[in-house]
Amino acid sequence: MEADVIKLLAAGLAMGLGAIGPGIGVGILGFGALQAIGRNPEAKGSIFTNMILLVAFAESIAIFALVISIVLIFVA
Amino acid sequence: MEADVIKLLAAGLAMGLGAIGPGIGVGILGFGALQAIGRNPEAKGSIFTNMILLVAFAESIAIFALVISIVLIFVA
Amino acid sequence: MEADVIKLLAAGLAMGLGAIGPGIGVGILGFGALQAIGRNPEAKGSIFTNMILLVAFAESIAIFALVISIVLIFVA
Repeated sequence: MEADVIKLLAAGLAMGLGAIGPGIGVGILGFGALQAIGRNPEAKGSIFTNMILLVAFAESIAIFALVISIVLIFVA
Repeated sequence: MEADVIKLLAAGLAMGLGAIGPGIGVGILGFGALQAIGRNPEAKGSIFTNMILLVAFAESIAIFALVISIVLIFVA
Repeated sequence: MEADVIKLLAAGLAMGLGAIGPGIGVGILGFGALQAIGRNPEAKGSIFTNMILLVAFAESIAIFALVISIVLIFVA
């Protein structure tokens, strides 16, 4: 394998593996949010606020992987 | 393996692995949404709104992987 | 494989694998927090405080992986 190309393989693995956790995480916390709204629709305001915050934190982990992937492709 | 081809392997791994998490995630949150609507159909409006939002966030993670995969094939 | 480039592969694997756990972890703790708010909205203040603290700890694990990944790319 040529040296220059291994970094592209690394970029692919970083984004591919890095998407597994946040994807499942958004699903699980979304499950909790929707169930909570179903049981107690009156609390939907504060459930929504916390849900968006949690999704943002989960997405940020996927964005870490995206950043490393882009750095590996274009900078490294 | 020829250098030029490793990046195609990387593109395949990025999209393939990157689809695992968001796919499961959409499934889990959809499960929650449908169960919640089944239990409390009166809350279906706000459950639907939140469900669409959550699916969009989960999909966006898969789109990160798609973008990296396309970049690896056509740009890198 | 050339020695210099294995470190980039290591960086990709560090971030990719390192994102799996925190991503799922944020999801699971978010599930717990949102369910708790749904059941007892009056406790949302202390649930929120603890949720943020827990998310910060989970995120810090992803940031460990990010730091190692950046060090492998730019310093090692």
